[in-house]
Amino acid sequence: MTDTKRSTVAALEDSMVRATPVLDHGFVRVVDYMGDDFAIVQAARVSYGDGTKSVRDDEGLIRYLMRHQHTTPFEMCEIKLHVKMPIFVARQWIRHRMANINEISARYSILDKEFYVPEMEHIAVQSTDNKQGRDASLSGENAAIVQAYMKAGANNAFDDYAELIDDYDVARELARVGLPLSTYTQFYWKVDLHNLLNFLKLRMDSHAQYEIRAYASAIADFVVDWVPMAYKAFENYKLNAVTFSAHEMEILKSILSNEFPEEVIASKISWEGAVLGLSDRETKEMQTKLGVT
Amino acid sequence: MTDTKRSTVAALEDSMVRATPVLDHGFVRVVDYMGDDFAIVQAARVSYGDGTKSVRDDEGLIRYLMRHQHTTPFEMCEIKLHVKMPIFVARQWIRHRMANINEISARYSILDKEFYVPEMEHIAVQSTDNKQGRDASLSGENAAIVQAYMKAGANNAFDDYAELIDDYDVARELARVGLPLSTYTQFYWKVDLHNLLNFLKLRMDSHAQYEIRAYASAIADFVVDWVPMAYKAFENYKLNAVTFSAHEMEILKSILSNEFPEEVIASKISWEGAVLGLSDRETKEMQTKLGVT
Amino acid sequence: MTDTKRSTVAALEDSMVRATPVLDHGFVRVVDYMGDDFAIVQAARVSYGDGTKSVRDDEGLIRYLMRHQHTTPFEMCEIKLHVKMPIFVARQWIRHRMANINEISARYSILDKEFYVPEMEHIAVQSTDNKQGRDASLSGENAAIVQAYMKAGANNAFDDYAELIDDYDVARELARVGLPLSTYTQFYWKVDLHNLLNFLKLRMDSHAQYEIRAYASAIADFVVDWVPMAYKAFENYKLNAVTFSAHEMEILKSILSNEFPEEVIASKISWEGAVLGLSDRETKEMQTKLGVT
Amino acid sequence: MTDTKRSTVAALEDSMVRATPVLDHGFVRVVDYMGDDFAIVQAARVSYGDGTKSVRDDEGLIRYLMRHQHTTPFEMCEIKLHVKMPIFVARQWIRHRMANINEISARYSILDKEFYVPEMEHIAVQSTDNKQGRDASLSGENAAIVQAYMKAGANNAFDDYAELIDDYDVARELARVGLPLSTYTQFYWKVDLHNLLNFLKLRMDSHAQYEIRAYASAIADFVVDWVPMAYKAFENYKLNAVTFSAHEMEILKSILSNEFPEEVIASKISWEGAVLGLSDRETKEMQTKLGVT
Repeated sequence: MTDTKRSTVAALEDSMVRATPVLDHGFVRVVDYMGDDFAIVQAARVSYGDGTKSVRDDEGLIRYLMRHQHTTPFEMCEIKLHVKMPIFVARQWIRHRMANINEISARYSILDKEFYVPEMEHIAVQSTDNKQGRDASLSGENAAIVQAYMKAGANNAFDDYAELIDDYDVARELARVGLPLSTYTQFYWKVDLHNLLNFLKLRMDSHAQYEIRAYASAIADFVVDWVPMAYKAFENYKLNAVTFSAHEMEILKSILSNEFPEEVIASKISWEGAVLGLSDRETKEMQTKLGVT
Repeated sequence: MTDTKRSTVAALEDSMVRATPVLDHGFVRVVDYMGDDFAIVQAARVSYGDGTKSVRDDEGLIRYLMRHQHTTPFEMCEIKLHVKMPIFVARQWIRHRMANINEISARYSILDKEFYVPEMEHIAVQSTDNKQGRDASLSGENAAIVQAYMKAGANNAFDDYAELIDDYDVARELARVGLPLSTYTQFYWKVDLHNLLNFLKLRMDSHAQYEIRAYASAIADFVVDWVPMAYKAFENYKLNAVTFSAHEMEILKSILSNEFPEEVIASKISWEGAVLGLSDRETKEMQTKLGVT
Repeated sequence: MTDTKRSTVAALEDSMVRATPVLDHGFVRVVDYMGDDFAIVQAARVSYGDGTKSVRDDEGLIRYLMRHQHTTPFEMCEIKLHVKMPIFVARQWIRHRMANINEISARYSILDKEFYVPEMEHIAVQSTDNKQGRDASLSGENAAIVQAYMKAGANNAFDDYAELIDDYDVARELARVGLPLSTYTQFYWKVDLHNLLNFLKLRMDSHAQYEIRAYASAIADFVVDWVPMAYKAFENYKLNAVTFSAHEMEILKSILSNEFPEEVIASKISWEGAVLGLSDRETKEMQTKLGVT
Repeated sequence: MTDTKRSTVAALEDSMVRATPVLDHGFVRVVDYMGDDFAIVQAARVSYGDGTKSVRDDEGLIRYLMRHQHTTPFEMCEIKLHVKMPIFVARQWIRHRMANINEISARYSILDKEFYVPEMEHIAVQSTDNKQGRDASLSGENAAIVQAYMKAGANNAFDDYAELIDDYDVARELARVGLPLSTYTQFYWKVDLHNLLNFLKLRMDSHAQYEIRAYASAIADFVVDWVPMAYKAFENYKLNAVTFSAHEMEILKSILSNEFPEEVIASKISWEGAVLGLSDRETKEMQTKLGVT
């Protein structure tokens, strides 16, 4: 512990001593951070000058900024995490380009024998309506078989890896090409709050793959500790906000002004795409947004 | 073929009909491009206005820009490539953040059974002095054994993958986690010329892994067709340029003004770090730069 | 006119011959472009592979991508514009960091005597409720006085500039510091479609300063020519879309399920923040969204 | 002062209490920071794993990273500055896109009457060989005249600004367009160490405009306090390093192996472009690099 003039967040400092375990061998831990809720306010007040002074309290200002896409003040906070995750998760993660990364290099280092095996409840069948997702879990029996396959396959790959390196002195950069995508890697990841919230919005979404959602959710817990006002505003105005297209807004306004046939308003379930001019898929999406499915 | 008012590069248009094969199943092909050598000149003349007019011919101006780190005019050219490469190569590639990517998603699609197996001459031992590289090739016999391992391992992984999907209907996003890093993926990659040259500088370097070097080299051939003046300037001022530290410059100047002991100048091989104040490693590096090892 | 294998957009090619005038001395013109609506589809199909084939027609796919924040395919189109605008507009413009710029340098070149003077109808008073905007126009008499001030001030500054350069040979980089923010500058601006649409969303908004809105609007006309399907989707799902916070969604759902007091539903004008749990400002914002003010 | 588990740099903490004055009304001050020399080492050790452990001490590793363009570990440090500078300096500054900015908005706030007037010694004539620079100072008499012009011009512009706002209630966003480029603005600027060093390399260069060099130099002092090892490595391997083109290297090697005519080696001043195959300008540049002009 040292003294500092920098703004300090006690709740996050507490989190710095421990890593949050994620999946079977992964974790997330906070290495460093810069700024807090007040740093957002402070930066915004530079921009708006007298325009904001004393008009609003800090939380009101943060809510205003979040609501009106004033994103630059949120870039004034920065966090550095140490994350350990399977390579297939790292590959999704790295698509968030506005961040800094130092990942372990399998050209330099021999990787530990650690790979991801999903728990049985997460071994699920291909979704039919969501082409990129999974659906119901497999039966216990089948899940066990699949899990055994996964373990055996990865074990074999790691045994080969060890053999190529130990017995044939094959260069690490080559020996590793047979390792599975479930192999654990790790990196330091540094990102500003604005880009982190974008990451959370995308990766906490129910369409994100379960495994990266597990990480996003662990990180969200840190963000709550770090910038509680900003996170609350994020939940309200971004994470759980709902956007209606121009077309949907026309329909919504019609409903609200009672210009729609009684029976359409009463039982929203009976909405028909044809009536509304929306495609079937969009009709479903709009019903989901309004919770009238 | 359609008519366009845009600048067109005949040599590159010719390349658009065919993909350049790279490694055993990979390729690079040009999908689209914007600009040419003249677009660099045109942008620079906007910046410097009358300051550059008629003073220099186009090639002289390009050379000047390259030499003096005036990088923005090179950002005015853009190229879009379709590349197919092993995942471990894609993982290195994607670290170049200033680019646009659409990669095939193994959550949506079932991947083809295609994986990289190095040719025997490229199966090499771990380098001892370069911790991240490979050294001499294995003996023919051992290389054959290693190659067989690699093939068998990947084959097994793909067989498991097919089984999980076909027999157990496991979600694609899960089934694929057992696939090896040698599995081929593909993406559209769009990048501006400045960032592409940075990519080439790093990935054509002898310290880059052989497999990504093969791609960089194939791309360089396209760049030669596309912006021949810029590429030539790049080769001279960047790719094959040599940088000396402040410390090295002092030594170099001493040598040139004959302030160094005769024997040091005569036989540069005998340079000693202690004399020069460089570490052993830096002494070696300086000798390499000057070709006096 | 030359032949090309690249995708070509006839409507945009037509626009390449002329600049669109904006404000009193400014313009926007298309210098080059890469891609079209089909390039978006093409990149998306690489990502989703068999997942998208034949399922949807091109426009349906573009609408789907826009609606679900699948932004990377839109990055596959690129446009290069030549823009001339007052410096205070350029200063807002340049905050869009994901773009390439070559701006005329007043260190190299002597700037032309061209500065922006608003037309009388655009000379307006400070807005009281929108701290950053303008409100009603000044009376004709006052507008004329203000306009005369502006002209005279800029004229004087340019006369000084000429004198410092001509009579005292003052370095251009210094002489220019007295020029007003209304001075015209120009740059080449290259940006991908995703970032361009973000620019349009922010700069076509009624809260953007009138002068940059004039440019955004001129550019939007080019985008309509260039990628008509993408632009139409953008209008529906982004530009004119409306987002409701989690809190607002609760209220909306209550209204739709008739759980709200009759009088609240009937006359939305009477909504009271206190009832809804929204701040006064948010109540107003929600009413505006629903067109019930 | 609060306690923190984060790494803390005592020397930089001391700097946080005061702003460094720059130019006549400007300043730079440190608002916040993340990381130190050790954070660079820490991130690098994640990447290289066992490959670097115990082999090298921290400073040796930092020097190695800097020398070999391993830039990502330097991105792991971040600093936030509060800077006040004339708008023409801000316009150069903002071209460094990889940073976060919150600038005061003249749409919201009425700007203070503060503008830059160069000291007499900095009022200089246009350079003839460097098209973008300044040369010798003006005579005292002329400098005084020019300075008076500058003051008067800016004073008039600010008087008009006040009048438009006070007497005609002209919207701030419009009234400000007559203000000169010498007007002071301010922003919070957050940047990682890698990008900051790039900024310093470009803006401490003798070709950068004096006024931005003054800021770069003030910032460099903070960096010395913050990451002394990294800064020292930067000075040696980047700031004061010298790059020779492939062509120049050939010449250099020829000189060193005495393959050049005696008189060329002896008096480097007599080098002739024709002999060396370099253009006149490049010959001069090479002589400058070697200090043999």
